[in-house]
Order: sequence, then structure tokens, then C-alpha cells
Amino acid sequence: MTPLQLARLSFLPSIPPLLKDISSLSFIKKQEMEGNEAIKSLFPHTFMQPHLEGVQGQSKKAVLRLGVVLSGGPASGGHSVIAGIFDSMKRLSQESRLFGFLNGPKGIITNQWRELLKEEIDRYRNQGGFDLIGSGRTKIETPEQFKSSLEVVKELKLDGLIIIGGDDSNTNAALLAEYFLKEGCSTRVIGAPKTIDGDIRDVYIEVPFGFDTACKTYSEIIGNIARDAISSRKYTHFIKLMGRSASHITLECALSTQPNLAFIGEEVAAKKKTIAGLVQEITDCVIKRFERGREWGIFLFPEGLIEFIPEMNELIKQLNLLLAQGVALEEIPKKVSSTFALLPEKIQKQLLLERDPHGNVQVSQIATETLFMELVAKELQRKGFKGKFSPQSHFLGYEGRAGFPSNFDTTYAYALGLIAPVLIRDGFTGYMCYVKDLIHPPSQWKIGGVPIISLMHFEMREGKSKPVIKKALVDLNGKPFKLFDKKRDLWKEEDHYLFPGPIQFFGDSSITDTVPLSLTAEYSSR
Amino acid sequence: MTPLQLARLSFLPSIPPLLKDISSLSFIKKQEMEGNEAIKSLFPHTFMQPHLEGVQGQSKKAVLRLGVVLSGGPASGGHSVIAGIFDSMKRLSQESRLFGFLNGPKGIITNQWRELLKEEIDRYRNQGGFDLIGSGRTKIETPEQFKSSLEVVKELKLDGLIIIGGDDSNTNAALLAEYFLKEGCSTRVIGAPKTIDGDIRDVYIEVPFGFDTACKTYSEIIGNIARDAISSRKYTHFIKLMGRSASHITLECALSTQPNLAFIGEEVAAKKKTIAGLVQEITDCVIKRFERGREWGIFLFPEGLIEFIPEMNELIKQLNLLLAQGVALEEIPKKVSSTFALLPEKIQKQLLLERDPHGNVQVSQIATETLFMELVAKELQRKGFKGKFSPQSHFLGYEGRAGFPSNFDTTYAYALGLIAPVLIRDGFTGYMCYVKDLIHPPSQWKIGGVPIISLMHFEMREGKSKPVIKKALVDLNGKPFKLFDKKRDLWKEEDHYLFPGPIQFFGDSSITDTVPLSLTAEYSSR
Repeated sequence: MTPLQLARLSFLPSIPPLLKDISSLSFIKKQEMEGNEAIKSLFPHTFMQPHLEGVQGQSKKAVLRLGVVLSGGPASGGHSVIAGIFDSMKRLSQESRLFGFLNGPKGIITNQWRELLKEEIDRYRNQGGFDLIGSGRTKIETPEQFKSSLEVVKELKLDGLIIIGGDDSNTNAALLAEYFLKEGCSTRVIGAPKTIDGDIRDVYIEVPFGFDTACKTYSEIIGNIARDAISSRKYTHFIKLMGRSASHITLECALSTQPNLAFIGEEVAAKKKTIAGLVQEITDCVIKRFERGREWGIFLFPEGLIEFIPEMNELIKQLNLLLAQGVALEEIPKKVSSTFALLPEKIQKQLLLERDPHGNVQVSQIATETLFMELVAKELQRKGFKGKFSPQSHFLGYEGRAGFPSNFDTTYAYALGLIAPVLIRDGFTGYMCYVKDLIHPPSQWKIGGVPIISLMHFEMREGKSKPVIKKALVDLNGKPFKLFDKKRDLWKEEDHYLFPGPIQFFGDSSITDTVPLSLTAEYSSR
Repeated sequence: MTPLQLARLSFLPSIPPLLKDISSLSFIKKQEMEGNEAIKSLFPHTFMQPHLEGVQGQSKKAVLRLGVVLSGGPASGGHSVIAGIFDSMKRLSQESRLFGFLNGPKGIITNQWRELLKEEIDRYRNQGGFDLIGSGRTKIETPEQFKSSLEVVKELKLDGLIIIGGDDSNTNAALLAEYFLKEGCSTRVIGAPKTIDGDIRDVYIEVPFGFDTACKTYSEIIGNIARDAISSRKYTHFIKLMGRSASHITLECALSTQPNLAFIGEEVAAKKKTIAGLVQEITDCVIKRFERGREWGIFLFPEGLIEFIPEMNELIKQLNLLLAQGVALEEIPKKVSSTFALLPEKIQKQLLLERDPHGNVQVSQIATETLFMELVAKELQRKGFKGKFSPQSHFLGYEGRAGFPSNFDTTYAYALGLIAPVLIRDGFTGYMCYVKDLIHPPSQWKIGGVPIISLMHFEMREGKSKPVIKKALVDLNGKPFKLFDKKRDLWKEEDHYLFPGPIQFFGDSSITDTVPLSLTAEYSSR
């Protein structure tokens, strides 16, 4: 282990007051969730459950047998949730036992698990990654998979199953909860909100864990690149940021580093911006900066940008249709919208040749950052640009998902873990645990449980309308976007780059315990 | 400014004892450098100067007028050198004045400078980047450029000019020192060894500043990616690391993170490895790891790898020759070695179409990481590989050049800065300042000056034999490489990844004050 790994093992996350004496935690039922008939028909057993608020109650011990599974891409804090679960259930009873399903939900279906003991948990406290038990993307979908999951939890005599995952994994948790109840199985299912993308949000889930560490890691790198740019004075950096559809990560990183331009997919869609329009916007910025003696720049692009551009969306629909109809490849360019002709040859090829397993165009594989790099270079040439334009492309993704969790993430995730066993002790199922008022110190955090189906709506998935957790997109009327919108004009032509530097774990709390800026913007005046 | 920027302003680097009372620093002349006639004929005035060792002497004050310039790509610690120069000369006399030439050596030639005052210096202490005065790559080469440089330093009445730069910039410093003496100008020229690439090394210069921060930043990212790999269990990462020709950075990052494979260009050249051989090595590793249930991996490639592969070197020579002869592009593939046919189409195109300003193939532009990614995918397919191979490529470069300097770099660079004005006070010119015994705490560091021309040899540059500082490559008989060689077999099939995490600035010195591992390996038993 490295010195930092060792040092982090002994970090003690601050604990919200209600979670200090965990056996005395109790829940009161708050307002009932709103529901509709469509949801009701699918979730007859878990429909209309109330929101739960954690309060101080009588000490209530319990011997629990719990299963835990990590689902989807890693997010910093996963090991902290597991440590929280473990500590919580051991305080409820030293005889409680925790079983970790291996490599994602597949581990439940195939009955692959390992009992997690103290020595092992202790080696993973406050560490990054999901490697204690591994993760995976398998979904529990078919009747056979539901059935074998039921058999496994029964065989293990689980009082509860805790699913640490994103929107789809928590959708799965809700479906399992419903199914287990229907089958008369007493295993409760509880979810914990995980995803670097930051797209699970509602009144109770202010942000999933992992978002903070990812954004801070990307912001460290963006800040370093920006400082390089003003030092070497010759490169224009096109930086794509992970985050699937929603642009939360790009918005947070923009607030943290103040780049010259940052595109928010949701705004691009709302304003119906075109590829040509975006290229113009970037080109104008390059030219105006050149006129002020700045032949460098920092531009941020969210991973999901392409699918928010209406004409690209249209083009992709056309392509998918023509491909499905078996139209010859060489005929396709003539039959689709003129947007196709605008794209660099490499991207055209990619759109025609690379398919996902369903035969669809792989939107997420399009290299947005090089797409714009090439189109801007062409446009500058067309305009007879006299300055230097040396573009560099970057994609920040995997480096932000499994690093040491920030103090914010490890403390938040640990608290989520502490709550879950108590929800199970009290018989609740189909809930996600929540911690809120996160911009305040942990001593002021509120905790509780939110019915997962209260976050759901219906979406078309593979041709069928399915209940899924609604992805929270950037709200263009929300305070974080408005803050960005107010400041961004200033950043375009002059340089107001900020250099956040690497995440710090020791020293002054004004450096180690910072909260995402978008969260502060959202909640600070409430 | 961010909280970390503010906090770093007040960091006080440890100061080696001899530099605490800077006016009492003196130098004794140690052994004379070895020299040859070829060097002598070019450097008649600065030939055979002795090495200088710093010792405690009598206090000797002096009013100095100094110029400083940053040259080449950024390296963390540049601002610390400048702060060291400033503090040193102000202690020699409050009337001393420092002038910063703007945007690299061009600033000297074109008489662009700004006086640096305390308030400004204080805003850049322990900060990353070169943006206080900017940097640039212009070389002072032509007689006119030498002449205008002379005029500028005369007009500014400079006692000394300090050039913070890499091998080429320090070569320039030696040429300027010689030229100024020849012209009877009393401006002394002193160099400070800067480059993230780590390729300026001799007995006195153990490592240039900036190497440590770059390697730690890349190692943070590699460690994060490795932790992601063992968590999501499905990606094979091909990571290219900056560092020009020498593989010092890759070697250091390999020791810090223990990837499954790391290629050292110097070894590839010594063992005359071929593209096909390297592809085989990687493919074998992927297959053996798959057989052990590991469908992921971390492979490191140095930026300079391509030019170390003998057959590629040969191919590039052939291409350059044919291109110079004006052979038609479509004829070229038939006339060059069969290596060309091995390469992916994209790389073939790149080799034929993209030229540097001299019309040569741009070796450094070849995307080594994607080259091997594609060839390995092809080879796996040919072998009927049944496992999952999902490669991801990364290039780590700009994010490591301008971040907050590690404690090691800022302390080392500050000490270099403190020394330079005293060398000038004592009339020395054509020297690089050095700090050695760097693996020990600063209280044990030794300091002095090394004649720049003692590091020189002759190299062909644009068809002419020119004296340049010899690039220090990885020594295959050296202790750092041997340490790597001893450990690497263990890392191939099993995972022994290390997770260094982000650079820490506060807390225990075992975490904040670490020294490059290759330096420890090199010097620890001496």
C-alpha cells in the first residue's frame, strides 16, 4: 500500500448526530408519495409508501443478515457505503453478518458471494474503487433472473439486500422489492444513490455520491491544463468530460475552473443550437481571443452533447431507420439530412460502420472533442485566420471514477451506509436511503428514506414503455446554471482560470471539506 | 484564487543550511572539467572551468541587476526558482533589481521585459505554471539574435542573466556566456535545470526540477485508472506518457503504480525489439491474464518509444529520403521496408501526409498508444481470442507540466533559485546551479555550480554537428531500471497496482515530502 492508502485507512468520517447511536435511529412517516395508476399497476405492493425521516428513538437491536452489491461504473465512496453498512449492522448486533455479491448483480443471479469480515472491510476504508467485491452492469430483467435472485436471497436467509448503484440499478432495486413482497419473501431491498454523473436528484437526493470526487479530479486536471495553456501560450484544449446525457459534471467543472467556453447539453437542446452554430461560437471565441493576444484556450464539452443537438438527434434517427431497412451504405449519405455532409469524414465513417449490439449508431462513441476541433480548424481556415491554432484533445473519464474519495464523498457515503441496515431492521423495502442538507457540516445533515418509485416515470426502452428512475438533467432555471450563465461572458475573451489543484485530505477544512459548487449554489440561500 | 492557491502562497520551503545566510555563501573550485579540442575551439573563454562547491564563507553583499527567462515547456517549480532568485538577491542587497524577460528567449532578443516586484512574486510562490512571465521556445541562434541579446543586457546593465530551461536552453546559456565574454560584456549567464522529461542528469544534476510533480500527477491518474480497471473489470488501458525520447517518466510511473506492462524505449532499442515482437508481448500478456480471469490491464508506453524501435527508425529514414526525392506518395509503400505494411492504415496515412516544417515525418505525432491498441486487437482476433478486449487509450502530458509543484519540486527549485545570484555575485558564468543528495532532507543537500559545457557533446542538428547538452537516457545498467526489471515479471499476470493518489501538501511528511522512487533507487546505497 502507498503512504496515502495507509493514511486514509484511519480517517474517521464525521457522523451526523442521529447516526452516532445507530440502534436508536428510528423513522417517522412523512407525506405520502404522489403516484399514478400506471405505476400502481406495476408496483401494487410498494405503491404509495411514505417518505421517511430519521429521528431519535428507542434503542432497538437486531441480528441482521444482509447482502450488498455494487452495480454499474465505479464511483468514489462505494467502499465507504459498505463500511457504513458493516459498522451499522455490527452495532445493531455483533452477530449480524454481511455478504458481498461478486461483480455486480450477476453475483446475485448466479449465487456468487463472499462473507465480508472486519479485517477485509478495514483494508478498504476511505479507499477508491469498487474492487472489494467488484461491480458489473448485468440487470436483473428476465423472469428467470428474478426467480434465481429470489432463491439466492432465500437460501442466504437475507433480511435485506442493499444495491449501491445509479438510476437503472435503483430501478432494479424497486422491481426486486416489489417482486420479493409479491412472492412473500421477507428480504427487504434498499438502494444507495451512486453515480459520478450526478443525474439522480430530487428534493431528498441532493446529489449521488461519487460526483464530488469525479468533478474535483477532472477540475484538478482542467486547472493544470489551463495553467499550462497560459504558460506555454500556444495550445487550444478541447476537453470532453464524462457524465452520460446530463451535463452536471461539465457545469460543476466549469464553475470550478472557469474555462473560456463550456457547453451545457440541456441549453443546446433548449436553444436548438446547430453544429454550425456551435462551431461559429467556438471560432468567434478563438478569433476574439487572438485579437487580444491570446492564442490559447480551454473549451469544455459534456459527453452527452451530441445527443442534445436537435439536428444530430434527427440525423441519428434517420441513420438508424435506414440501417434497419438495410439500405446500402453508399446510398445512405444521399438519403439523410444535410447535417451528415457537415461532419468530418472520420465521424461519417464512424456513424455508418460502428453499431451497438442492437444495430444502432453508437452516439456515445462519437469523439465530440475531435469533431469540434476539426470543424473549427476548417472554419478558421475558411475565414483566413492569421493566428496560431494548435488544438489538443482530451477525454476525462476513467481517472475520476475510482480515486480516493474526497472527504465529502467518503463522509456522505459512509452515512448512507449507516442508514441502510436500520431501514431494513424496521422492515422498509423499496427505499433509497438519503442524506440531505449536504452543504452544511455533517452535524446538521438530515437523513431518511425515499420510496424509489417516487422518482420514477415511464420511458421507452427497446421499444417498450418501462418504469425507470427519471434522469435529472441540468435545470436551466436552476441556480447552478444561472450562476454559470451570469459569469461565463467574462471568461470568454479574458482568462479567469481557477486552479483547484489535487484533492487534499489533510490540513485546513476550508481546503479538505469543500462541497460541490453547484450544490452550494443550489441550496445556500434556502 | 482557490483555497489551495492561497494556502500554498504561505508554504515555506526548507532551506539547506548553506543557503540560510545567503550572503555568506561562497564557492570553492573543485576538479577541473574534462574537455576536448572540439569544445575548446567553440568555447575558448569558458573552457576548462572548474566545478564549484558551495561552502560557508565571509558575508559579501552586492547590489545586483539580474534578468530571468523561462524557456521551453512548463515544469512545476519555475515560479519557485524565480522566488528563490528574488529572495537571494534582495538579501544580498535591498537595492538589487530583477527583470523578467517575457514569453521565453524571444523576450531577450526583442527587449520585452518587466521588472518583478515583491508583491507580484509573492502571488506566485509555490504555484504551478510559467505564467508570471510566460515561456517560449525561440532559440538564440543567429548572429543578429546574439547581437540584439547583447544590446539588451547591456542597456539593462545586467550583472547576470538566469535561464531556466532544459537541455537546449542550457546549451543556449553556455553559448551566450561564451559570446558575452568574447564581446567583453560583464553579464554572467547561469542556467537552472528544468524539464519534466528528467533527461538532464549527471553526477551533479541528479534530476531536473518538474520531473517529480509530473510523475506524481501521472501516477495519480494511472493509479486511479488501475483502480477503475479492477473495479469495472472490463477495460484494457493503453497509456502513453509524455517525456520526449528518454523513458525516465515511464520508468518512474511504473515504479509508482506497478502496471502490468511498461515499455522502456532504451531497452527496446538495446534488444532490437520489433513492432511485431512488442505486439506479441502485449498479446501474450492479455491472453495469460484472461486465462487467470482478468479481462483488464494497464500498459504504459513512453512518448519516445517509436523512435527507439530499430525497424521504425529505419522506416522513417527511408520515408524521409523518398519524400525528399519527391517520389510519388502512392509509390512509396512499395519502396520501403515491410514494416510499413504492418502499420494500421491511419498511421500509414499519417506517416505519408503529415510533415514538420523541414518536410520530415513527425515521429512525435504518431499515436503510439492507438497503434499498439489496433495491432493487438488484430493479433488477438487472428489468434481466435475468446475473451473480452475493450481497449481504452490515454495520453498523459499537459496535465503534468504546470500543476502545483510537489514539496520536493518547490523546495528543490527554490534552492536552485537561491544559488544563482551568488554565482553571479562571484563572477561565474556558463554554469548551471545544482543541488544534490536530493534523496536526503534539505538539511543535508549539497549545492554548487557545474560548467554547462561539461555536459556537452556533439550532435547532428539540421545537417550540422553542433555542441549540445547530452540527453541523459535511461541507463539499462542503472539501479532504477534494475529495480524495475526485478519486479516487473510479478506484475504481468497478477495485479499489484499501487494507488499513489493525488499529491498532498499538508500532513505527515512521509506523504507530503516523498522523493522520486527512481532517485531513491539510484542514490540510496551510495
